[in-house]
Amino acid sequence: MNNQLLELPELNVFNDLESEVRSYCRNFQTVFEKAKNAKLWDRNGNEYIDFFAGAGALNYGHNNEKIRGKLIDYMMQDGITHSLDMATNAKETFLTQFQEVILKPRGWNHKVMFPGPTGTNAVEAALKIARKVTGRSTILSFTNAFHGMTLGSLAVTGNSFKREGAGIALTHSVFMPYDGYYGDDVDTLSYIKKLLDDPGSGVPIPAAVIVEALQGEGGLNSASQEWLKGLEQLCKERDILLILDDIQMGCGRTGPFFSFDDAGIEPDIICLSKSIGGFGLPMAITLLKPEIDMWEPGEHNGTFRGNNLGFIAATEALNYWKTKEFQLDVEIRAKSIRKVLEDIPVKYPEFCGETRGRGLIQGFAFERQELAGRLSEISFDHGLIMETSGPHSEVAKLMPPLTIEIDTLEEGLKILERSLEQLSAEER
Amino acid sequence: MNNQLLELPELNVFNDLESEVRSYCRNFQTVFEKAKNAKLWDRNGNEYIDFFAGAGALNYGHNNEKIRGKLIDYMMQDGITHSLDMATNAKETFLTQFQEVILKPRGWNHKVMFPGPTGTNAVEAALKIARKVTGRSTILSFTNAFHGMTLGSLAVTGNSFKREGAGIALTHSVFMPYDGYYGDDVDTLSYIKKLLDDPGSGVPIPAAVIVEALQGEGGLNSASQEWLKGLEQLCKERDILLILDDIQMGCGRTGPFFSFDDAGIEPDIICLSKSIGGFGLPMAITLLKPEIDMWEPGEHNGTFRGNNLGFIAATEALNYWKTKEFQLDVEIRAKSIRKVLEDIPVKYPEFCGETRGRGLIQGFAFERQELAGRLSEISFDHGLIMETSGPHSEVAKLMPPLTIEIDTLEEGLKILERSLEQLSAEER
Amino acid sequence: MNNQLLELPELNVFNDLESEVRSYCRNFQTVFEKAKNAKLWDRNGNEYIDFFAGAGALNYGHNNEKIRGKLIDYMMQDGITHSLDMATNAKETFLTQFQEVILKPRGWNHKVMFPGPTGTNAVEAALKIARKVTGRSTILSFTNAFHGMTLGSLAVTGNSFKREGAGIALTHSVFMPYDGYYGDDVDTLSYIKKLLDDPGSGVPIPAAVIVEALQGEGGLNSASQEWLKGLEQLCKERDILLILDDIQMGCGRTGPFFSFDDAGIEPDIICLSKSIGGFGLPMAITLLKPEIDMWEPGEHNGTFRGNNLGFIAATEALNYWKTKEFQLDVEIRAKSIRKVLEDIPVKYPEFCGETRGRGLIQGFAFERQELAGRLSEISFDHGLIMETSGPHSEVAKLMPPLTIEIDTLEEGLKILERSLEQLSAEER
Amino acid sequence: MNNQLLELPELNVFNDLESEVRSYCRNFQTVFEKAKNAKLWDRNGNEYIDFFAGAGALNYGHNNEKIRGKLIDYMMQDGITHSLDMATNAKETFLTQFQEVILKPRGWNHKVMFPGPTGTNAVEAALKIARKVTGRSTILSFTNAFHGMTLGSLAVTGNSFKREGAGIALTHSVFMPYDGYYGDDVDTLSYIKKLLDDPGSGVPIPAAVIVEALQGEGGLNSASQEWLKGLEQLCKERDILLILDDIQMGCGRTGPFFSFDDAGIEPDIICLSKSIGGFGLPMAITLLKPEIDMWEPGEHNGTFRGNNLGFIAATEALNYWKTKEFQLDVEIRAKSIRKVLEDIPVKYPEFCGETRGRGLIQGFAFERQELAGRLSEISFDHGLIMETSGPHSEVAKLMPPLTIEIDTLEEGLKILERSLEQLSAEER
Repeated sequence: MNNQLLELPELNVFNDLESEVRSYCRNFQTVFEKAKNAKLWDRNGNEYIDFFAGAGALNYGHNNEKIRGKLIDYMMQDGITHSLDMATNAKETFLTQFQEVILKPRGWNHKVMFPGPTGTNAVEAALKIARKVTGRSTILSFTNAFHGMTLGSLAVTGNSFKREGAGIALTHSVFMPYDGYYGDDVDTLSYIKKLLDDPGSGVPIPAAVIVEALQGEGGLNSASQEWLKGLEQLCKERDILLILDDIQMGCGRTGPFFSFDDAGIEPDIICLSKSIGGFGLPMAITLLKPEIDMWEPGEHNGTFRGNNLGFIAATEALNYWKTKEFQLDVEIRAKSIRKVLEDIPVKYPEFCGETRGRGLIQGFAFERQELAGRLSEISFDHGLIMETSGPHSEVAKLMPPLTIEIDTLEEGLKILERSLEQLSAEER
Repeated sequence: MNNQLLELPELNVFNDLESEVRSYCRNFQTVFEKAKNAKLWDRNGNEYIDFFAGAGALNYGHNNEKIRGKLIDYMMQDGITHSLDMATNAKETFLTQFQEVILKPRGWNHKVMFPGPTGTNAVEAALKIARKVTGRSTILSFTNAFHGMTLGSLAVTGNSFKREGAGIALTHSVFMPYDGYYGDDVDTLSYIKKLLDDPGSGVPIPAAVIVEALQGEGGLNSASQEWLKGLEQLCKERDILLILDDIQMGCGRTGPFFSFDDAGIEPDIICLSKSIGGFGLPMAITLLKPEIDMWEPGEHNGTFRGNNLGFIAATEALNYWKTKEFQLDVEIRAKSIRKVLEDIPVKYPEFCGETRGRGLIQGFAFERQELAGRLSEISFDHGLIMETSGPHSEVAKLMPPLTIEIDTLEEGLKILERSLEQLSAEER
Repeated sequence: MNNQLLELPELNVFNDLESEVRSYCRNFQTVFEKAKNAKLWDRNGNEYIDFFAGAGALNYGHNNEKIRGKLIDYMMQDGITHSLDMATNAKETFLTQFQEVILKPRGWNHKVMFPGPTGTNAVEAALKIARKVTGRSTILSFTNAFHGMTLGSLAVTGNSFKREGAGIALTHSVFMPYDGYYGDDVDTLSYIKKLLDDPGSGVPIPAAVIVEALQGEGGLNSASQEWLKGLEQLCKERDILLILDDIQMGCGRTGPFFSFDDAGIEPDIICLSKSIGGFGLPMAITLLKPEIDMWEPGEHNGTFRGNNLGFIAATEALNYWKTKEFQLDVEIRAKSIRKVLEDIPVKYPEFCGETRGRGLIQGFAFERQELAGRLSEISFDHGLIMETSGPHSEVAKLMPPLTIEIDTLEEGLKILERSLEQLSAEER
Repeated sequence: MNNQLLELPELNVFNDLESEVRSYCRNFQTVFEKAKNAKLWDRNGNEYIDFFAGAGALNYGHNNEKIRGKLIDYMMQDGITHSLDMATNAKETFLTQFQEVILKPRGWNHKVMFPGPTGTNAVEAALKIARKVTGRSTILSFTNAFHGMTLGSLAVTGNSFKREGAGIALTHSVFMPYDGYYGDDVDTLSYIKKLLDDPGSGVPIPAAVIVEALQGEGGLNSASQEWLKGLEQLCKERDILLILDDIQMGCGRTGPFFSFDDAGIEPDIICLSKSIGGFGLPMAITLLKPEIDMWEPGEHNGTFRGNNLGFIAATEALNYWKTKEFQLDVEIRAKSIRKVLEDIPVKYPEFCGETRGRGLIQGFAFERQELAGRLSEISFDHGLIMETSGPHSEVAKLMPPLTIEIDTLEEGLKILERSLEQLSAEER
């Protein structure tokens, strides 16, 4: 948490009028004006390369021209912007496209729920329906999980600073060790099984397990494919629903559309938001296997669940996924990043730590935790926007738009390398 | 709750692919394509007059041209769409405009918090900060209150159908009778005071009271100015924070910008969403008196709290409030509606009930509760979209865009009159 | 709450070794040694008349000789003292006697549950079974109710000082105004009905209502017979269970065996403790209508649920109830007390207040709340033990053993009158 | 759980009048009449050896003559039976004796709290004060812990059958693996430390840890001395209070007075009940280090917290602990039992399983879980009362009075051996 004052005079309006809760503007102290794909410019014309991508909401870049074109056309034709959950052309097109491009190729028949246009809403809806369908109340979540900031989602989020913000006890959740939490030698699934199968353990059979295939906020911790498969199996055997929160990691962030595609699992419930809206527009969906789509009409709702500009942008964005090409592009970019990160321990052995993540969400976890934040500061001074994550903000995290041009990526990585050099010099 | 099947073949895509939770599309069975100010057109070219206005999210009408122009300009200049809570031009302009047009004229210095772009997020943030600041946990809410669908907001929402959807107990809230709940003769405030001041009552001093000045979903119940003033006083004397949820009633829905302006109160916390975004775009703000803006940076956050298209639209929309003219326009329209509603008991004495609401949210509460829903059906068949509210969906509710042309309003009211006539004929 | 130091040197052992939580020993500062029926003697031979009766646990007096004889016989014959819930002669005899003397004459067939030997245990068991049988979770309780100090019972207890002692939120309870809470003109039942029958009120249909027919700790507030009948009706119509907590008021404290006998109701669940054990011995029972006795074996248990000395004493004590004579004796004594209390406003008009209670639990509620405590202090100095109750400890409470000799009663009342005189003198 | 019908005609009264919740009377189907030290007799004169000892409430045997003598003397002298928490001779004597015999030799200065006369009350008081003192709410408990049946204690009890009886969610507790839960190779303390020290784990720093040094109901699982020391250290370093629940295992059940004496720890809070009352009389105490005795007077209370017969019996019983002799007697008896249990796998290799426990609470855990219950049945038929424990009732448990005569013990063990033989024959 960065409490530093916003000292630049041009930030006066924010200092004077906006709540103390604002945070990123404290780390990136300037007023941004324009943005295009992987670059931003501030009011003074300074250019920044974006390795943050709206925390995963801008996988297709800033002001993606194809998507923008569709949005403006739609608006100019008096297309409906806001429709609650009435039927519209825009929604129909999105539903059809989502089925064709995402569900059908996987042989899935999940129903699409529009729960309100934010990730936390998608999670709240998932928890509600899981509890309704099973008649149970506990949700099993994992160490360092992040699922949102409203009371239901916060109860399954691990971060103690965020949790304490609730002001009341967060209940009906139980936390279990994520894959690798106790080191590579400990199989956390067998640990969990013993608790679930022991009627004296104090740990009840939960309504659902909620999990991220790769924990973004939690510090880029990856679950192995075997672990995810095992988790799916564990759930099935005990009639527990599996909720996959792919809000940050979905829409190609790790390579394939879903971060868990390679594990070959089919979660009962999947939460998507952030980049599903294609253009940075608020949108979220909760996918439900048909047999658990046991909602009464209107049992969960929200004013902005029919954000049709989101549908328009999302429909266009899904075109990226009609072929395998886009995923290959991501992987090429991922390799460049991986190379730079893997060089860190070689070039700067004093930065003890490890490379984490995959696809276009990779990072370096520093043992001296404060170095990650310092690296982010230095990088910003050099024109690169990147953030930290992890329980101690100890992971420097690189997540450019998936559509970043190769040149821009290389340019950004060069800035990163210069910043590492400076960090190394400072530490000497 | 309407479980009726969507039988029109053109709704097949929705029937096949969307979750059972969808609701309004069951009442208004067609696929909408275009909209302009107070009119919508479906795919088959049928025209509908909109007396629903996105449940209050479209106070400035569909595709408001002034706002749309600003949006398209901004997008074409590569303005930033999504910025988390980094500083942007668009946000600065909104903050300045909001201060000039809304806060300064009232002599207020509330801080503006962007809690995530939906009403429920604005409420969750309000509850969190109230609990943090006071160190207490209970929130006092009112009978028939509606504040949102995520777990924190749902706990202060009265509707049992929505509450049961939570699947777990909703705690830390206590419900008290709203103004008029026990009839005009009972002063519910004195009732509440006795409970709060009795250390044996079982009702603790709450962190905050959350209240709507006019309950929309709850059935268009109005609190009197005296009651609101008394409530503010009650809170002050006991160091309880007053949260005013103006999500549906704010932005001019009842006439003045805030629905409680006439009561002369200054709530500690105010929640706005729905029409604050101007164009039906997801946006929300929570206003906090400076002394209670005790957040740590990032203690509450959300991916879409920096929806800059919302800031652009909101800034333009606030221009409506620079003079008194807009409010007068609303009042003229309100009178036309009032006249029609007040004629109902005269023309159709068999429709026992009463007129409710004010400004451009008025309605008729039927004693035979099912008539409200039937009236909505008939109206839709005649080309008028209007909804019901209240615990038994017993109130037929009229809430056109504030910008509705006089002609369109009159046309809509004629449809309403024809529909009433048909309803009367059916009931005979 | 009395924080005064225990200054007498003879209380040193308690000051040094016992927890700060001790309370009555702060008000009655001496070391008691012996007791017989309605009198106690301290270590220095001072005599005290007991108008407190173990807070209702000593209805049959201290060291009741008939009961003591039975106990000693039983012990000398190697009767079983502790049996968990195994079958014993002593328990069989008690069950039979309870059926003959209490249940059968009322035409009841409640099952007897031994939930652990304290009142709070009887209440916890009642709440558990009510939730199990109905599948609902909320318990409706009343302002100024007192039901116990363990977490379940505390959640339905009104006193804020006791509640805050929990250290965590007390949930799944909702408090409603007791009979007369808003004055004689307000029918609190109709108030409650409106909330229960309004699906938007935020107040759910509870599993059960828990109520005292006369609130002891809450300040000697009486429910009328009509109100109790109405409450029973209200519950029946909505399939809500009625729990009558007769822990303090039962066993004849108000005259008849059950404090609600005159109201002609038959509660679904009845909690008894305190004087049921006859001799001040820990014992409690929860009576359940057969159709709600849906426990699994051992689903609630407790080490001391089979306190056989309690069964022996209880069986003997129930002999008092074989005829109407005992109740008549109580009523005679009650009249003497009533007379003295009703004279207070006449003799001492400066003591504004009112007479409360009935049977052998009556008192005077002082408007100047601190006078009750002062009266108790003065009385103790004069050799009379009496306590206060009410949310502000504003009620001076007289509750001698039911078996108090007429002479002792008169003697005690004389001390009371002298004490009132002194109080009046002090206040002049 | 044994649902079998009580078919004996002599149990008719219980079948007809007592609640279905009764349990032990279903396993031991007879009506008991008399008892002396380690023997019981039923109404038909059948003799039973008692290897159950009131689930640990009868450590000094049935009708212990020394204690009984004191009780009868006290009663005959009109000693006070019931005193709430007023000062009495009997209480003073107990406090002094407890300090002399128990606290002073250990160099402790814990304050003695009388929280109500049952174990669950002692635990509820412990949890309350821990939450008050620390300002935190979570309690860390262990797999297979048993702490009581009222709502607060039940929340820290592991058994799912008992937990589900609550009818509502049990919150503010978190369960961690007890010593040995994952086998001898896994150090569960280091597991717990990682969770507590990780701000992202979702597991908060608790107010207190509550633990049994040997889990009775949980299946005779023992914590090692090192583990208990480590746990004390873990708590101290994080400012967490350590609550030792010695309700069943204290008062010499495992050999020394406290079950954790050998580990050399000094818990912040210690709960005692069951045998503290000496004679099977309801009594409980909660010991608090002086610095955490932060109660307000009366903040926790209870009608029977001053059960003076309990004080009289307890004072006499503590005489057993004035020398080391009594503990040596226990150890001699423990060896005899150990020998028989350790022979089981040798004599009956088909009974896979293991010997558990120490002192006079030892048992055999059968791999074929149902055999424990069958062994108990057979033993009862042969005149031996013993029970099972563990999450699957898989442990046959031997816990005679500590005062059992050597002859009676040998006789009981012979019955056990005959029963094992019969069990083996049945299984062949």
